[in-house]
Amino acid sequence: MIKKLLLGLLLASHVVCADDGYRLWLKYDPLPDATQRANYARSAGFIAVSGNDPVLRTAASELQAGLQGLLGKPVPVIGSAAGRTGGIVLQVGSDPALNREGYRLASRGNNLVVSANSASGVLYGAFALLRQVQTGASVANLSVTSNPKVKLRMLNHWDNVNGTIERGYAGSSLWKWYELPERIDPRYRDYARANASLGINGTVVNNVNASPRFMTDEYIKKVAALADVFRPYGIRVYLSVYFPASKVVNGPGKPALKSADPLDPAVRQWWAEKVNEIYAQIPDFGGFLVKANSEGEPGPQDYGRTHADGANMLAEALGTHDGVVIWRSFVYKPAENADRFRAAYEEFTPLDGKFHPKVIVQVKNGPIDFQVREPFSPLFGAMPKTPLAMEFQLTQEYLGFATHMVYEAPMFKECLDTDTHVKGPGSTVAKVIDGSLHGYEQTAMAGVANTGSDRNWTGHTMGQANWYAFGRLAWDHTLPSDGIAREWVQMTLTRQPKAVQTITDLMMRSREIYVNYTNPLGLHHIMGYGIHYGPEPWLDKAPRPDWRHTYYHRADSVGVGFNRTATGSNALSLYTPQVQQQWENPQTTPLPYLLWFHHVPWNQTLSTGRSLWDELCVRYYTGADSVRWMQQQWAQMKPALDPEQFDDVAGRLAVQQKEAIWWRDACVLYFGRFARRPIPAPFKAPDRSLEEVKRIVDIYQLR
Amino acid sequence: MIKKLLLGLLLASHVVCADDGYRLWLKYDPLPDATQRANYARSAGFIAVSGNDPVLRTAASELQAGLQGLLGKPVPVIGSAAGRTGGIVLQVGSDPALNREGYRLASRGNNLVVSANSASGVLYGAFALLRQVQTGASVANLSVTSNPKVKLRMLNHWDNVNGTIERGYAGSSLWKWYELPERIDPRYRDYARANASLGINGTVVNNVNASPRFMTDEYIKKVAALADVFRPYGIRVYLSVYFPASKVVNGPGKPALKSADPLDPAVRQWWAEKVNEIYAQIPDFGGFLVKANSEGEPGPQDYGRTHADGANMLAEALGTHDGVVIWRSFVYKPAENADRFRAAYEEFTPLDGKFHPKVIVQVKNGPIDFQVREPFSPLFGAMPKTPLAMEFQLTQEYLGFATHMVYEAPMFKECLDTDTHVKGPGSTVAKVIDGSLHGYEQTAMAGVANTGSDRNWTGHTMGQANWYAFGRLAWDHTLPSDGIAREWVQMTLTRQPKAVQTITDLMMRSREIYVNYTNPLGLHHIMGYGIHYGPEPWLDKAPRPDWRHTYYHRADSVGVGFNRTATGSNALSLYTPQVQQQWENPQTTPLPYLLWFHHVPWNQTLSTGRSLWDELCVRYYTGADSVRWMQQQWAQMKPALDPEQFDDVAGRLAVQQKEAIWWRDACVLYFGRFARRPIPAPFKAPDRSLEEVKRIVDIYQLR
Repeated sequence: MIKKLLLGLLLASHVVCADDGYRLWLKYDPLPDATQRANYARSAGFIAVSGNDPVLRTAASELQAGLQGLLGKPVPVIGSAAGRTGGIVLQVGSDPALNREGYRLASRGNNLVVSANSASGVLYGAFALLRQVQTGASVANLSVTSNPKVKLRMLNHWDNVNGTIERGYAGSSLWKWYELPERIDPRYRDYARANASLGINGTVVNNVNASPRFMTDEYIKKVAALADVFRPYGIRVYLSVYFPASKVVNGPGKPALKSADPLDPAVRQWWAEKVNEIYAQIPDFGGFLVKANSEGEPGPQDYGRTHADGANMLAEALGTHDGVVIWRSFVYKPAENADRFRAAYEEFTPLDGKFHPKVIVQVKNGPIDFQVREPFSPLFGAMPKTPLAMEFQLTQEYLGFATHMVYEAPMFKECLDTDTHVKGPGSTVAKVIDGSLHGYEQTAMAGVANTGSDRNWTGHTMGQANWYAFGRLAWDHTLPSDGIAREWVQMTLTRQPKAVQTITDLMMRSREIYVNYTNPLGLHHIMGYGIHYGPEPWLDKAPRPDWRHTYYHRADSVGVGFNRTATGSNALSLYTPQVQQQWENPQTTPLPYLLWFHHVPWNQTLSTGRSLWDELCVRYYTGADSVRWMQQQWAQMKPALDPEQFDDVAGRLAVQQKEAIWWRDACVLYFGRFARRPIPAPFKAPDRSLEEVKRIVDIYQLR
Repeated sequence: MIKKLLLGLLLASHVVCADDGYRLWLKYDPLPDATQRANYARSAGFIAVSGNDPVLRTAASELQAGLQGLLGKPVPVIGSAAGRTGGIVLQVGSDPALNREGYRLASRGNNLVVSANSASGVLYGAFALLRQVQTGASVANLSVTSNPKVKLRMLNHWDNVNGTIERGYAGSSLWKWYELPERIDPRYRDYARANASLGINGTVVNNVNASPRFMTDEYIKKVAALADVFRPYGIRVYLSVYFPASKVVNGPGKPALKSADPLDPAVRQWWAEKVNEIYAQIPDFGGFLVKANSEGEPGPQDYGRTHADGANMLAEALGTHDGVVIWRSFVYKPAENADRFRAAYEEFTPLDGKFHPKVIVQVKNGPIDFQVREPFSPLFGAMPKTPLAMEFQLTQEYLGFATHMVYEAPMFKECLDTDTHVKGPGSTVAKVIDGSLHGYEQTAMAGVANTGSDRNWTGHTMGQANWYAFGRLAWDHTLPSDGIAREWVQMTLTRQPKAVQTITDLMMRSREIYVNYTNPLGLHHIMGYGIHYGPEPWLDKAPRPDWRHTYYHRADSVGVGFNRTATGSNALSLYTPQVQQQWENPQTTPLPYLLWFHHVPWNQTLSTGRSLWDELCVRYYTGADSVRWMQQQWAQMKPALDPEQFDDVAGRLAVQQKEAIWWRDACVLYFGRFARRPIPAPFKAPDRSLEEVKRIVDIYQLR
């Protein structure tokens, strides 16, 4: 009977139990090797935890579920290990080697002890221990100490009230606003589990282009329901703010104001009351994220005030509550002869030292907008008195949506490891962010989420690795990209060593391949208008000059590139002399940054020995060819992978291959009209005209 | 080892194998009763099918997967039953008792024979046989014959190219346009399976507010890839048409035209070529669905032509291809003193007999727009020379989105069973639709889909029943609503008899309960502006008069309701005298339709013995109270249900309860200002003011 039922279950189960990617890296299928299971089992006889702290209980239950699945045996949770050995002990203590959220994994006698100075620390330690088992690492004589380098490790969701996600490519929003607070989607909890497993401790649930609804009692109740789900996982909720909310949001029994002027006492009072209203329902509310006077969003400048005036007003409204104001520096004003590259620096550096201690300024990694490669933002290192947070983008707005495989860790690391030289050699961006360079009290790193309601969370299965890598790097920016990739592959895709190596290698090359077939040599911002899909370097009409793509590449009969040296916009001068020196001379500027700073003649010979035009073609063609190579590599992985996950990626690689050639053809045909030079051998000129390529772009711009 | 692995699988499996509703009514878990399994097993020793027809192969594999799951034993598929008994034989023959898609289930000797005149017929028969087993019906001495009453049974998807769904409440579109045609989401196949199991044989994949992208080679390729997945399930793909596509869509190598005039030879040529282009890639393409000169969509009238001119142009473009043009009659023009009720009738009846034989006119069930209750559209029966298709709405645009339990079958049946009297008594709307009344060659029924990317497809688990019921009624409109509900509950939720009865009863009452707390006595179109969420009867400003809600209810100090008799708009005159007679006298008009046709004084005594005002209050209050009753009933079902499905519905019922009171309070407070009468005992006046209720509505209108 039971056999029959199991058979039935297995026969029917393909419908529900295929690996659809829902479990992310938290896959707890039994380890295939019985000896290995037995070895781990000897150290997992029980899980001892005392007290009823909800986060500690989470640590115990996650560890239990994980180990029971991986080891294929029940693992009891008990109150005390007194007199028992061969188990795992979870405990909160006071360990000088650990900061508030750090953890220690240590063998003590015959037990494994997971200790920390807080329940969250223990939770992170529990997941770290599971990671050891999932990746087949030994747990004998364990002695691991790990402290997060950044305090606030958060996701930013650009999710709208109507369920859409700005720049989202994985379905609709995870948050069901019409169902909350009464109905709790089981997925909310799984979202929290995934974040907690990485040490992510905060989430901004709504778009920075914020709806004022979130400042109403109706929606605060909904957000509070989410916060209740996230709390046991050590995750705090933050809200994006519509700056003039005081003008549109009523009481109850309290009329909206005529103003949103941050220096108006009535406005300040309005926000003080709003803050108290929020904390009454969300006692651990994290604070506000603000996009103001940016891309049409209103802000303090509408009242002749500064960003500091606006941010400080909100910070003072937070009063004694344990919350912060995260103010975005992403601003730029339309102006024909200005350089968007300079905008944030010019608006924000004069305000250094003028911000309230509760304010953090959140800066995108580069000066423009999440391009495939950008020089680091000149703001990093330029505001010693103001805590600066890093804003990375996980969702692939400029990286091929959900059909291009682009592993982002190397891109994040590239920025974090860059030396700003503001306090001499070794003044890396990472040290600005983790507070060590300027002694910031507050430190934060944010990732614009790539999650959505798609079953596998990120659309592209490989996109899960970007969520994973962001979390790991926010915890410890010194972790190597390839190590993070290897870990993720083992936990998510396969433990077969050759496959782990091959897929890790693919991931490590993927971003540079994408750069080559889309924006080589420092080209930037030439993607399809509005939707940011496909190539559109020819775009020379738009509502504002800095939305035209000819503004960025400046191709002409002489050459291509944006001269940002002293003879051009001189944006280069915003950096320290040592950095300027790296990038000021077109002869010596590293090729990846060349066209970011220089207008280079088509016939200029580069360090590769090729002319600029030839080099450009070589990169576009080899980039597109590399996608074929990626497909071939992936095809060989089939035996080591779950069929559904294999097919998902194989299908997306086929799209990527088609679009890589689309990008290549569009760009060599378009720039070729200026260069008036042939495609260098051995490459063949595209077998279609620029007009044919443009036609495809136009199709995707139709209503 | 195997035991360990299974244990591990079971311990870990809760993560993936909870009943998240993905399988819909195609749940093939082992039947709990071993004797019952054994009984069925005796008739399921094998499945015999010959030939390689893809649809026949589908029938065999679906039957195999279903029976293997339900019976917990392997069921081999073999080529011929020659000399074997105790199995199932699938065969295509020529059976005069069956139409092209009908099927017969018959015991022959010791075998069960599923026969039909086409492979699709066999497929539908196979699912019918599975339904017998799923619902515990006997398969001994089986003799079932079933023929679909309508030829085209289709879903209309209002899905946009950006992945959003107009009036969709279950996540984003199922169609991943940026991944197609290279990547095929496994879900496409499961979508086809669900439809085929109901006999749905067509799907319009894009919104009637159509993007011209679908008329480009780029998108036709994508649609063709979907058609390839659907074909083995007997489902044909249709496309909504942007009427002036010829003005915006280029070749390849073929410029767009200056015109979209249906009588312009160049335009007719353009469409003829476009049709050939489509059929070259989709040989079984079903045809076009058109929304023209409606709500701002362009159409033939822009060129001084009629709907017939436009539809006939497309029909002639289809030429000899086996496709149809489905032209929607949903039109109404802004005019202060017109009655929107009359618009479609006035525009379309003069065109009767002027349409090409390939044209079907698709009419919404009621004259306005999918309101909670509408009188049948006066077009039914008024166009004897023009095949009319029924358009029902499954997605709950006006029925509480995805948080209100409203079983729609009784609403569909209410319309289908109404007697138009156009050919004497018994001239029901159903007989118009199935062609029997006027001898239509073409017959069709369409449901505006409630599907989306949410894991359970429809957001509200109970919403699956509306998809199911539509499919069953499109096949056979004589099926009883409660029978369909019972079937669906047994296949989807539980087989526990008491629970089946209670849940069926809940479903059967659900729509009337919704009517009572939102639009009792024939009130209509008083929902929140634009988003159609919540109540907004006070709306008296809008871009067009017929978008104001005061236009519909016309409340004043005397009474409420829209006088559509001879002393009013006289829309009533569009019906036959017999129908007019039912609705012309406010004393005798059935209360559900009262305010559709009459402006009734607040103090008028109704057939219930109560004044209009008191009756209105009784319905709003009892309606809202009934939701509590629904919650109590559901709570008692817990032991009989899967925990996840139980929680899903329980959570949504809690939202429904809150919103029912919101509707009640909004409407009694608003209409009370005109009636100037107290809330009748025993009911208590709302404990909040109209302003407070309006405030909540305003919140949901914020950007």
